[in-house]
Amino acid sequence: MYRVGIGFDAHPLEANKKGLYLGGVKVSEEYSSIGHSDGDALIHAIVDAILGATNAGNIGIWFPENEENRGRRSTEFLEIIRKKILAGKYEILNIDSVIIIDKVRMNPHIENIRLKLARILGISKGNINVKPKSGNTLYGNSVSVYAVCMLKKVGT
Amino acid sequence: MYRVGIGFDAHPLEANKKGLYLGGVKVSEEYSSIGHSDGDALIHAIVDAILGATNAGNIGIWFPENEENRGRRSTEFLEIIRKKILAGKYEILNIDSVIIIDKVRMNPHIENIRLKLARILGISKGNINVKPKSGNTLYGNSVSVYAVCMLKKVGT
Amino acid sequence: MYRVGIGFDAHPLEANKKGLYLGGVKVSEEYSSIGHSDGDALIHAIVDAILGATNAGNIGIWFPENEENRGRRSTEFLEIIRKKILAGKYEILNIDSVIIIDKVRMNPHIENIRLKLARILGISKGNINVKPKSGNTLYGNSVSVYAVCMLKKVGT
Repeated sequence: MYRVGIGFDAHPLEANKKGLYLGGVKVSEEYSSIGHSDGDALIHAIVDAILGATNAGNIGIWFPENEENRGRRSTEFLEIIRKKILAGKYEILNIDSVIIIDKVRMNPHIENIRLKLARILGISKGNINVKPKSGNTLYGNSVSVYAVCMLKKVGT
Repeated sequence: MYRVGIGFDAHPLEANKKGLYLGGVKVSEEYSSIGHSDGDALIHAIVDAILGATNAGNIGIWFPENEENRGRRSTEFLEIIRKKILAGKYEILNIDSVIIIDKVRMNPHIENIRLKLARILGISKGNINVKPKSGNTLYGNSVSVYAVCMLKKVGT
Repeated sequence: MYRVGIGFDAHPLEANKKGLYLGGVKVSEEYSSIGHSDGDALIHAIVDAILGATNAGNIGIWFPENEENRGRRSTEFLEIIRKKILAGKYEILNIDSVIIIDKVRMNPHIENIRLKLARILGISKGNINVKPKSGNTLYGNSVSVYAVCMLKKVGT
């Protein structure tokens, strides 16, 4: 049985030296994403798409904004989702995503991001795509991400 | 044969006593959604996703902004779509959605919303997910909803 | 094997006589989309959804903002994508899309747009839907498009 999921996340960007992480990769030294954990909008959107497709709640329930998750690397969230939700129950057929950002040139980072996410999720790099887009001046100083996933139920 | 659909709706919010409906459930007494019908952005996005996947036009054609639909409960729209488009022709494999809203805490309402929508659509609660998200100050005084659906053609 | 893709594009609108193209059809004489090529946000979102589902990069890599693509008709982009990516390798099961625009009444143009896109992609009009939506004053002077596609791998 096939299932689709959609995830979204958006964070304002701030010019500071903390660095911006997207897909677990540092993509900017000049900006950082204002958020409770590391503000990795790409991983948050993918986690929410998987939670949506598997009917397993939402990212706010799994990883609430508490002390344990303050500044936490979102790659840990994705690992937990893989172990607790996907493993033995769902196969990821593919994940696609769009990152809307004007402040950072993303194309140089896309291959590293795809490799990193594929490794964490245990899928081939050929099954996860990440597409940067300019907001054409409409999105200002922020990063917005939409992700969709296509899953196949494998276990009971 | 499988088909995917995407739906979107967004309404400004207004602080008044009319109440805000999402997924057919009253989720706030303090705010209401500025719109022609009851402004239920979640049901509107789901209706548009189903119309998209089944190639049956769009919500503006089915439920135009006329006197008949002024203030009308959007749950009626969903019932009509189920009877006239889905029944005997398409099986809903799953529906997923993201509600972006800062003014209202949504998690307490999610189970009621899923139950209500599942009952209207004649599907299991396990096949419809609703995920609230903060807009992280980027969405101000509004509610935005994205919905996707995965359908299987069953009839001719 | 089935795959899903998501595409997004947004352009500010400008009141001038150049005309606004969406889905390869001129939908307004009063406005035009500010962008490098012809600013056809619908075709750009569909191209990006197909590139996403087939893991073939993104529209910025295929059609960079260079002299060759300045003012170029986006219908050419879609033809290239069909020949180089889809032909013999993927079947389009369906494409759905949402156009968010307040300045132009879109319903009169939808059938022409669907016919044109179906012809370029070599699919039936019944497999591509285009749904206009008002931004309910939240999207001002712009056009935003979300597209999803469902593909089936046919070749090797």
